[in-house]
Amino acid sequence: MTTIQDVARHAHVGAATVSRVLNGSGYVKEETREKILRAIKELNYTPNEMARNLYHRKSGIVAIIVPEVSHPYFAEFINSAEIALYSHGYQSMICNTWREQNYETHYLELLKQQRVDGIITGVHTLDIEQYQTIDRPIVALDRQLGEKIPCVAVNHEKGGRMAAEALIEAGCKKVLQCTGVRRVSTPSNVRHEIFEQVMKEHGIPCYNYLSKWNGFEYSDYKQAAEEIADKYMDIDGFFATDIMAVSLIHAMESRGRKYAEDFKVVAYDGTFVSSLPYPSLTTVVQPIEKLAVTCVDILMELIQGKVPEKKNIKLDVTFRQGQSTKSF
Amino acid sequence: MTTIQDVARHAHVGAATVSRVLNGSGYVKEETREKILRAIKELNYTPNEMARNLYHRKSGIVAIIVPEVSHPYFAEFINSAEIALYSHGYQSMICNTWREQNYETHYLELLKQQRVDGIITGVHTLDIEQYQTIDRPIVALDRQLGEKIPCVAVNHEKGGRMAAEALIEAGCKKVLQCTGVRRVSTPSNVRHEIFEQVMKEHGIPCYNYLSKWNGFEYSDYKQAAEEIADKYMDIDGFFATDIMAVSLIHAMESRGRKYAEDFKVVAYDGTFVSSLPYPSLTTVVQPIEKLAVTCVDILMELIQGKVPEKKNIKLDVTFRQGQSTKSF
Repeated sequence: MTTIQDVARHAHVGAATVSRVLNGSGYVKEETREKILRAIKELNYTPNEMARNLYHRKSGIVAIIVPEVSHPYFAEFINSAEIALYSHGYQSMICNTWREQNYETHYLELLKQQRVDGIITGVHTLDIEQYQTIDRPIVALDRQLGEKIPCVAVNHEKGGRMAAEALIEAGCKKVLQCTGVRRVSTPSNVRHEIFEQVMKEHGIPCYNYLSKWNGFEYSDYKQAAEEIADKYMDIDGFFATDIMAVSLIHAMESRGRKYAEDFKVVAYDGTFVSSLPYPSLTTVVQPIEKLAVTCVDILMELIQGKVPEKKNIKLDVTFRQGQSTKSF
Repeated sequence: MTTIQDVARHAHVGAATVSRVLNGSGYVKEETREKILRAIKELNYTPNEMARNLYHRKSGIVAIIVPEVSHPYFAEFINSAEIALYSHGYQSMICNTWREQNYETHYLELLKQQRVDGIITGVHTLDIEQYQTIDRPIVALDRQLGEKIPCVAVNHEKGGRMAAEALIEAGCKKVLQCTGVRRVSTPSNVRHEIFEQVMKEHGIPCYNYLSKWNGFEYSDYKQAAEEIADKYMDIDGFFATDIMAVSLIHAMESRGRKYAEDFKVVAYDGTFVSSLPYPSLTTVVQPIEKLAVTCVDILMELIQGKVPEKKNIKLDVTFRQGQSTKSF
């Protein structure tokens, strides 16, 4: 039987640190936390929660609902959430929704029937009202589901400002930003408002390309990129999420415009995709692993019947300077 | 209550086609199959399986085990498997293993205890013997788990040959291929043997870069790419999986060598990552969605107590010509 001491020894930390990670209490450096979560998995350490789950007739399953599992942002989120859930003795169930309401309803039913103990949801297609009547553990990732349901997001306002300032400093005179479907109430929309506002303050024209599609598939990004590159040949800078940014770089280059020279780029999200282009891509990085761990921590509190201290969590974003915003 | 006719109408196909997709019998065009699976989800159609599961006291859950959920190959596989499983009335449970044996054991336990009805596994760290004693539904993705367990893979021999021939036709004189850890018994190793053999037949020196790491994380790829670019400055062509290929392009370019001009590239897998670079990347494409649907179809047969007709399925690979192998 593996003990908490075995885990501590394996991860080269103290048992108290392991305990802090398991209970989600107190500060632990991200790097250390990750080391501990790996040790837990490598040693197949089962925290007491699993035994407790069996006793309390819980399912021991948490559902993670996202629009598209294979989108790198959600894939990296699920990756980290699964590890964190396992450390709490939970299995992860996943589902794709393509923003379809019926599927969301189906999982809320599973939650009501106690076939899953909690839901982490990165989608929001149902009316907020439908969530207000459910008195079961739900945490929202970057989605506003009303006052009762905790929401974990990043400081998008800061992120949008960082992106705008980087393009301005690079000397851009006409920019474009790719925005999502605005009718969905998500904190991430704020970054676009700020971006536009900062550009306005500097007298720089800013196009908003509103994606018409509803999905997160690569073919959609590719098509949007071709459309933008055809229609907005006059821009000298743009701001978009990782895949969209790299797809648009491709589309612009295929029309003879040189990436990082003729046009500047700031990406948003910081998945591995933002690290692929050469020259390197300036990126506003979301702490995806920390988002996942925070969602799981709060869900665990809810499952244990506790009231989370904060309902609206805003994690910090960081700025990764690349060569894609060097001055003209 | 949604009927099979509603699904057919929504997808603009006949009910018999929907039925073929649901039962996994007979030929249905990939495009049509996808349309039907989407219709099933959009209408929240619940095939009778779900009702049958409840009656037969099945869990209605299938576990998908992969080394790393966020790796694009596995993320795209899981995406498609989840959709296919849902159409059969099953929920998808996922887990990351980082090739750790203990975690694999844990899921085999869940299977023995009937807490999951079946496993689709893309990992293989345990001894094959441990699998031989389990008389429960398991399907292996690209892994050999002995004679009893069905294995779904692609024709890697053809894939390796295609890659070699593309680099030879481009005029490469000294090439490198990135190979995985060879001690794991996977059909995909065949592509490397063929690649090397074809190069030998043409008198072209071929380095084999054997990855020392055990994971599928982006940082590992990045590090390997830097190492290769430092050590093998004399190569004029290489063959690697999508992320590795794009990472190596980045590393070579940062050392002043021009992608598609000074060196040629063939990628393997065909995830969205292979579509990102400009100029376009020549790629051997695995039919990832079809791999997922085939794994699910065979698992369904096993769950229903049937004996699958074939134990070793080899799907075809396709060749996507890009600009990265245009002649010197």
